[in-house]
Amino acid sequence: MWRPFFQPYHLIIVQDGDPSRTIKVPEGFDYELYNRNDINKILGPKASCISFKDSACRCFGYMVSKKKYIFTIDDDCFVAKDPSGKEINALEQHIKNLLSPSTPFFFNTLYDPYRDGADFVRGYPFSLREGVPTAVSHGLWLNIPDYDAPTQLVKPRERNTRYVDAVMTIPKGTLFPMCGMNLGFNRELIGPAMYFGLMGDGQPIGRYDDMWAGWCTKVICDHLGLGIKTGLPYIWHSKASNPFVNLKKEYKGIYWQEELIPFFQSATLSKDCTTVQKCYLELAKQVKAKLGKVDDYFNKLADAMVTWIEAWDELNPSGASTELANGSIK
Amino acid sequence: MWRPFFQPYHLIIVQDGDPSRTIKVPEGFDYELYNRNDINKILGPKASCISFKDSACRCFGYMVSKKKYIFTIDDDCFVAKDPSGKEINALEQHIKNLLSPSTPFFFNTLYDPYRDGADFVRGYPFSLREGVPTAVSHGLWLNIPDYDAPTQLVKPRERNTRYVDAVMTIPKGTLFPMCGMNLGFNRELIGPAMYFGLMGDGQPIGRYDDMWAGWCTKVICDHLGLGIKTGLPYIWHSKASNPFVNLKKEYKGIYWQEELIPFFQSATLSKDCTTVQKCYLELAKQVKAKLGKVDDYFNKLADAMVTWIEAWDELNPSGASTELANGSIK
Repeated sequence: MWRPFFQPYHLIIVQDGDPSRTIKVPEGFDYELYNRNDINKILGPKASCISFKDSACRCFGYMVSKKKYIFTIDDDCFVAKDPSGKEINALEQHIKNLLSPSTPFFFNTLYDPYRDGADFVRGYPFSLREGVPTAVSHGLWLNIPDYDAPTQLVKPRERNTRYVDAVMTIPKGTLFPMCGMNLGFNRELIGPAMYFGLMGDGQPIGRYDDMWAGWCTKVICDHLGLGIKTGLPYIWHSKASNPFVNLKKEYKGIYWQEELIPFFQSATLSKDCTTVQKCYLELAKQVKAKLGKVDDYFNKLADAMVTWIEAWDELNPSGASTELANGSIK
Repeated sequence: MWRPFFQPYHLIIVQDGDPSRTIKVPEGFDYELYNRNDINKILGPKASCISFKDSACRCFGYMVSKKKYIFTIDDDCFVAKDPSGKEINALEQHIKNLLSPSTPFFFNTLYDPYRDGADFVRGYPFSLREGVPTAVSHGLWLNIPDYDAPTQLVKPRERNTRYVDAVMTIPKGTLFPMCGMNLGFNRELIGPAMYFGLMGDGQPIGRYDDMWAGWCTKVICDHLGLGIKTGLPYIWHSKASNPFVNLKKEYKGIYWQEELIPFFQSATLSKDCTTVQKCYLELAKQVKAKLGKVDDYFNKLADAMVTWIEAWDELNPSGASTELANGSIK
């Protein structure tokens, strides 16, 4: 189903779980496949920052990629159709989102002002109409919505059937729940912030990998003057995961989150933080200082955040200290 | 066209311009009609705060109303149809928006979580799921979009044909361009902030009446913990106003706006401001102190803001000092 849409692109497949299992990739795709043994070999002791038996392992792929734009997708996602019945080319829409600017400083009531048939409305300051570079494109899901375990349990039959034909910028200073199911980003602008944390095997939580990445990413984008868009494209999410299993993975996250959100809402980065790496290391320091007391897990996570950046810079030596081209630190 | 939708409600018609002209209201409506002579008689010297020969005069209607919910609409707006061809009951949707809570503290990627078929997504903090009371419902426009004169001149043929099936909360701390063409609000929660300023006859600007009200309202809603929603319902906007005339009305606003936006973005209200009136008077003080130097017009506007509150309290003696029921001052 994805062949016509994915075949033109380079695929990186991160195989989770037992590395002796063989994944069969259909013919005709240009791909790299990494299992746990590969990750351990490439990263050595730094492989400890890559999660095992959790969807968080995917971020290893972001690190080894050499491409500018990344699209990441879950294995239970299929091609969705728009209201006219046409199959949606999710990648094409993500690229459109990433290539057009974002408008985080003021809300435009007609949604993305750069889209055909739309513009900035009366009262939108002219000085803000150039926008800022877009770092992240967050796509949505038809059919099974991305609910937490308690909501899944309460509303087992709810399906998302509403196709909202809009793309919009998440305003500066506002956090959002970034879902990794259908996500595009500009690796050169924000790659090192896309760390999916320590989840799954040996860790006290799961299913917060993308959320963690999203909160860190949003704080860093706000600091660096980069934009995050959400809305189109939709994918078709076929299968709700087991809510009882999810509840076990999530329950610590559900109450930790109540302390994490105020932490990220009030986090500020110093003016010296002029690269994503510097921002991320500064954030890791603050995680240790302020969240370490919530649970020792956050001390480990803060250390893993540092390891992640070390590993990223090792594998991406040229980009290690690149300042942002636009340099508009806010 | 509006009869089936408006007939159940009480209408207040504020007649602009020459008071000797007679407006014919079709039979069967429950209405009050006010012309300039009526306004002068009712408000006496305080009538100076109500604009003449500008759509801003409508806010007199908000002041004399005794209803909880207000819907305000321009005279060139017609009933729109949804994608299925059904006529949209704009008032019904505004009331729905105003009766369900808002979520200004965290962005929900599936839009209004209180709508049928939607909810809060994974990663949305549970402590924020109760939401806050909704004070304003901002509806949109099919056909002629609400563009400023420069955009009208550049894109004379642009029409809004995109029906976006969504309602969302404008996040806390983010300003937006509030258009008065299709607007609902809870008069008890936010009424005294809905002052449309000094525009039109004898004033240096026009077409910023609703914008001014929107910026003041947003700052006050953020302070008092109230929500503003935008999106549905759509109305059909039939006729673009003359862009050359609009340019003359707008041009001072277009450059003043570049100073107004930073002013409103950084405006903070003290903890003593526990009612809309107190907030508004505090804002008037700040307008005089900080914007008076931009142009003497803002000194006059600040005085008019005070007069507006005095007139409001005179006509609404019981509500003059009502503290908000929920009392959640942030």
